[in-house]
Amino acid sequence: MRIDTALLERQLDELYAIGAEPGGGAYRPLYSDAWAQACDQVERWMKEGGLAVRRDAVGNIWGRVDGSSGGKAVVTGSHIDTVRHGGRLDGALGITAGLAALRALGEAKGKPKRPLELLVVCEEEGSRFATNFWGSRAIIGAIGPDEADTVTDAAGVTLARAMRERGLDPANISSDARDDLGAFVELHIEQGSILETERVPLAVVTTIAGAVHLEVVVTGRPDHAGTTPMDLRRDALAGAAAMIQAVQSIAAALGRPAVATVGKVRVEPDQINVIPGRVTFTVDLRHADLGGRRALEERIRSLCETIASERGLGIAVRTLHERPPVPMDAAVRQILERAATENGAVPAALVSGAGHDAQVLAARCAVGMLFVPSIGGRSHCPEEATDPAHLALGTRVLARALELLAY
Amino acid sequence: MRIDTALLERQLDELYAIGAEPGGGAYRPLYSDAWAQACDQVERWMKEGGLAVRRDAVGNIWGRVDGSSGGKAVVTGSHIDTVRHGGRLDGALGITAGLAALRALGEAKGKPKRPLELLVVCEEEGSRFATNFWGSRAIIGAIGPDEADTVTDAAGVTLARAMRERGLDPANISSDARDDLGAFVELHIEQGSILETERVPLAVVTTIAGAVHLEVVVTGRPDHAGTTPMDLRRDALAGAAAMIQAVQSIAAALGRPAVATVGKVRVEPDQINVIPGRVTFTVDLRHADLGGRRALEERIRSLCETIASERGLGIAVRTLHERPPVPMDAAVRQILERAATENGAVPAALVSGAGHDAQVLAARCAVGMLFVPSIGGRSHCPEEATDPAHLALGTRVLARALELLAY
Repeated sequence: MRIDTALLERQLDELYAIGAEPGGGAYRPLYSDAWAQACDQVERWMKEGGLAVRRDAVGNIWGRVDGSSGGKAVVTGSHIDTVRHGGRLDGALGITAGLAALRALGEAKGKPKRPLELLVVCEEEGSRFATNFWGSRAIIGAIGPDEADTVTDAAGVTLARAMRERGLDPANISSDARDDLGAFVELHIEQGSILETERVPLAVVTTIAGAVHLEVVVTGRPDHAGTTPMDLRRDALAGAAAMIQAVQSIAAALGRPAVATVGKVRVEPDQINVIPGRVTFTVDLRHADLGGRRALEERIRSLCETIASERGLGIAVRTLHERPPVPMDAAVRQILERAATENGAVPAALVSGAGHDAQVLAARCAVGMLFVPSIGGRSHCPEEATDPAHLALGTRVLARALELLAY
Repeated sequence: MRIDTALLERQLDELYAIGAEPGGGAYRPLYSDAWAQACDQVERWMKEGGLAVRRDAVGNIWGRVDGSSGGKAVVTGSHIDTVRHGGRLDGALGITAGLAALRALGEAKGKPKRPLELLVVCEEEGSRFATNFWGSRAIIGAIGPDEADTVTDAAGVTLARAMRERGLDPANISSDARDDLGAFVELHIEQGSILETERVPLAVVTTIAGAVHLEVVVTGRPDHAGTTPMDLRRDALAGAAAMIQAVQSIAAALGRPAVATVGKVRVEPDQINVIPGRVTFTVDLRHADLGGRRALEERIRSLCETIASERGLGIAVRTLHERPPVPMDAAVRQILERAATENGAVPAALVSGAGHDAQVLAARCAVGMLFVPSIGGRSHCPEEATDPAHLALGTRVLARALELLAY
């Protein structure tokens, strides 16, 4: 098999130019003009590659090669939408590498036994509408009957209206559900720096971590910064700072793959000469197994409550969002490991801290993921990059895995 | 001497009603309609009290009783402007108590030896324009030649334009400077909870604390909250939280009157699933003596730099504002203490953590301040209140001190 890496890099450049923003990066939110232009471009590439192309109701694009002996489809691909100021590789790599792999397989091996499909997922990032995994949830039949009419973007446009503006009919969403998928394999960038730090060129994902998002509200008393002695204060920020430290220490002490992040903070009244009376912050907790994540959450809640109580502060913690961890299919993992080894790489076994469509599609088929290193761990930004040799290796391993699954 | 406390309370109510806000509290920013209405009201009261009233160029109001033997004037009073959602007593107490004291002195003692004046300062709070101590700075001749034309409010209105709208001519500001002031004594609420906690009904201020405002910018790297292990992070907020803790601990360990407050925090990018790459926070440091405050600042700067260095974070600290501590005049303090003792109170000696006009007027005359307790330490809010017995005591002590100074 010969992978055309020059074409791969060129297609990545061409996709990255669609939705290019003045401040750097590309922005292709669901159903936007840039999104539609990128879909058209990828559809042309699919047709040039000899795939039979169709778009489903929500706008996922499927490119298919029928199999000689039928059976459930082997699928690869990724999402076409991006975050604001998104990078060149997130999503785009899985699509262009899938194109390259299918082209190489067709040229070298001819028709597969099982159907082989390239999937361009319409949306994964949640960067426009107040929902995400819109494309993959349509495929597993998990979109609620009211969702298209009730979920809106920041301008108040519903998903249904945005679909109609692209010629898509929300009434047909349920027809997108597929029960003929055998496996889904995706090549993606790591979006972290473990592979780079450990100098490993490739990883097979073991699990997509579960996450819980908490909101913590700490209440004290907003006194005058000049007239209130330190010993008479009920400073909500001093308490919150101790809690933020505790969140970090607990996760650090547990070690990989546990992570805990305080990302948002709001201080009230937020004046230079007033002791903060109220602080609201978020905690993003992730772990590879549900028990581990629950234990992490329990320790953090308990320590925050102790800190509040010791300082005479009020505290309220609520769960904003929760999703369980999703293990990858063991057989698919073995195939990915074998494909890597045959390509001269010893892959790392990695937990994905980020969410991916595979965690949704796992409800309907065997899923697996390959990660290639992110330079400096950077992602979701214009600096997002991967060594071309790693992109080539990832694409070769993907192609070999698809061969093992479909031929 | 008989203090009319019922009239005092009624006048406090009447002033508090001027500029009343729907959300509670009063707002009388400099040169606003509410400010002008309050000035007119106080001028009427001054005239009813037999004072000779004049307004100076910036709008300070002076009510005067000439002295039989001349000499420099003995002055009392406070500011008429308020913060947003300001309380019933801050500023208003010093004005109404001054009115009550001068009325009682006139009735009981007749004409003073030295001139006795009530001063209504036009602005002290800095709640409208990007400057403060406008009234007292005019009195000491410390307003720069360009200031009225260059300093604006949030709507871009210059001080000069706002003055003209009130019939005041900015060209005359320099005529406000006085060199004939002998002493300035002000009754104010504590705005803190030391007196209440220690069950003391009155304090004589020893010093108005110096303050420095710092801005600290901590820079790390804004990585993905899911994909970046704890040990590979450069989390600007985790570092900032350690620094906020250190600021608090250092001031608490030094003990009264040292205070240090982090009041404002901005986290970037402020997203739930992104590790903060940059955190900006302010530090308000106050101490009674310059050496103590400098030592406090030095320890805080040094510890923040150590924390940043240990965590691989960048740090930049800049001084936003600095003012030296101002000791009260020793002779005036003795008179205030004597007046308190004669009224049956053993006054506390307190450092004022808040700024007051006395710190400005100290450049031209002997200054002193009396504090009465704030219930719950609350100030600059609708809950601002003082036990009527404490208001009466404070006014009696003020009147006796003015007698000792002017008769």
